[in-house]
Amino acid sequence: MSAAAVGIGLLGLGTVGAEVARALEADAELLAVRLGRPVRLAAVLERGPERAARAGIAPGLVHTDGDAVVDHPAVQVVVEVLGREEPARSLIERALRAGKPVVSANKETLAKHGAALFSLAAETRTPLLFEAAVGGGIPLFAALRSVQAANRIVAFRGIVNGTTNFILSAMAEGNAAYADALADAQRLGYAEPDPTADVEGYDAAYKACVLAFACFGVAVSPDAVERTGITGVSARDIAAAKADGEVIKLLARGTMEGGAVRLSVAPTRVPAASPLGATRANYNAVELTGDRVGPVLLVGQGAGPAPTASAILADILDAARVVGGAPPDPFFIRLSSPI
Amino acid sequence: MSAAAVGIGLLGLGTVGAEVARALEADAELLAVRLGRPVRLAAVLERGPERAARAGIAPGLVHTDGDAVVDHPAVQVVVEVLGREEPARSLIERALRAGKPVVSANKETLAKHGAALFSLAAETRTPLLFEAAVGGGIPLFAALRSVQAANRIVAFRGIVNGTTNFILSAMAEGNAAYADALADAQRLGYAEPDPTADVEGYDAAYKACVLAFACFGVAVSPDAVERTGITGVSARDIAAAKADGEVIKLLARGTMEGGAVRLSVAPTRVPAASPLGATRANYNAVELTGDRVGPVLLVGQGAGPAPTASAILADILDAARVVGGAPPDPFFIRLSSPI
Repeated sequence: MSAAAVGIGLLGLGTVGAEVARALEADAELLAVRLGRPVRLAAVLERGPERAARAGIAPGLVHTDGDAVVDHPAVQVVVEVLGREEPARSLIERALRAGKPVVSANKETLAKHGAALFSLAAETRTPLLFEAAVGGGIPLFAALRSVQAANRIVAFRGIVNGTTNFILSAMAEGNAAYADALADAQRLGYAEPDPTADVEGYDAAYKACVLAFACFGVAVSPDAVERTGITGVSARDIAAAKADGEVIKLLARGTMEGGAVRLSVAPTRVPAASPLGATRANYNAVELTGDRVGPVLLVGQGAGPAPTASAILADILDAARVVGGAPPDPFFIRLSSPI
Repeated sequence: MSAAAVGIGLLGLGTVGAEVARALEADAELLAVRLGRPVRLAAVLERGPERAARAGIAPGLVHTDGDAVVDHPAVQVVVEVLGREEPARSLIERALRAGKPVVSANKETLAKHGAALFSLAAETRTPLLFEAAVGGGIPLFAALRSVQAANRIVAFRGIVNGTTNFILSAMAEGNAAYADALADAQRLGYAEPDPTADVEGYDAAYKACVLAFACFGVAVSPDAVERTGITGVSARDIAAAKADGEVIKLLARGTMEGGAVRLSVAPTRVPAASPLGATRANYNAVELTGDRVGPVLLVGQGAGPAPTASAILADILDAARVVGGAPPDPFFIRLSSPI
């Protein structure tokens, strides 16, 4: 493999960032074969030197200033796995303005600032890819891109939050009360000590906004998502659903009708004997409905370092193709000109 | 839209071919926006003038000789929906030798002659795309391409034949005997008058070969697939499975272990309360397992003119991008160099 390596700037070295760094090293040969040239880590943003050392990052690659990573001359593709809004948003903007493709897993920032960021991506003709932002390792946007070729997406719905699906599955299968199922999920590491973002549906609402933008090309504020969490779901509700052959899932839904997009997140009954109803524990499932193909459902691991890194690496290779001189995939531009 | 149109040569005007022709006309604007230039039918192979007239094809576009369509100077992308081996195989070869990208839905020809045809595609650097050959409208190979970026595919399994899934679902849900469920499927148009290719698993075996090539980069002869159809499945077998919370599905499976690929098609018990077990009636489902992402399942309509045309049109747009001067997607070349 004699072609020059593509340099990656990695913003964030949390669980997912560390896994991406590890995978770039461990699967260097696979990635080089897939891309036609090597991919290597060129700079990493991490303020904790111990964490960088633990992740096996050479000290010379580690920076404590995000701008330095984005601006680094060896960095050609920027991978943002910081989470939260700032400095993530500013660094994504900085990279796009510099014409450096961005891979982001940051549903909150994409949901809140997607309209501006995707406009900037289109304007600078620089890809902003986000396969890992919804559904973890599920190749959701790759599938969407294919379906969109010859379909108008009319609706989506899905289980996009693993924590709440774990809790609802435990309640249904173990006849557990909500509080007990939540405590179990926290003990097993599936729920945060403060579970608000998951159980109140904020995380799912952010993902609904990202899905809406990708499916319909329309930016919707997270505040405009009709949102109900799972804290009000009782063991009695679940038993009543079961008696009707149904299960309760926290569904994120989006519809496009007459140019109007409507987004919601709410506990919803679905038939137990359906692929969506049978999506259990921490798995995610998203159904896209096209006007030609009908419904297409994708099911897989919606979180976890390895599945999430899988999606990020796929985006890195697509971004690296652009750096290599191939024209940008029209997907990210198409987003701004829906039909 | 001022860019010159991409000319399509359509081989075959059966149910699927007629739907592709109709969609190229009806959704001309959508396709032109997606691609950045128009796509139009330039020549059609059809021996029956009535059929061409019924499909609304202008008489000047209709040819009775396949070579004339492939060689036509206005044809830049060849779409093969003839089915069966000949003249399909020869025409695909002719197109690839002329450097014209090919879109084929022909699982039998790809299964029997894939090794030679994909080698020729790699040699001539001409895409041979086949999204519609397995799983109808399900964007299976688009998802596979994304997963393969950073995963070795270790296994696949799936329900890839809608006819047998319809029959097995009817037996399970209606307590019907095999013969009665088959007769119902024939009456409703889900099974052919001679159902051998479906019920004996030949169709699923062809699809297993196409999947094996795409997943593992290895050509396997359909004769080497361990194949058992559903004619031996009794109402008693289905009841016994049900008592254990399971259903019987005709699964096509492939595994790659230590460089050896093993393919099988056989009635197999799966948990009823799983997304695969809950895939009913004429729906298809395929699960791909990557070493990083774990299992990813896709469910959708595996047949029917509109879903199949959806997949073919997605391939047409990808092929048209190559004609437009974009470098060929590495997927079809990657197939010949698995890692």
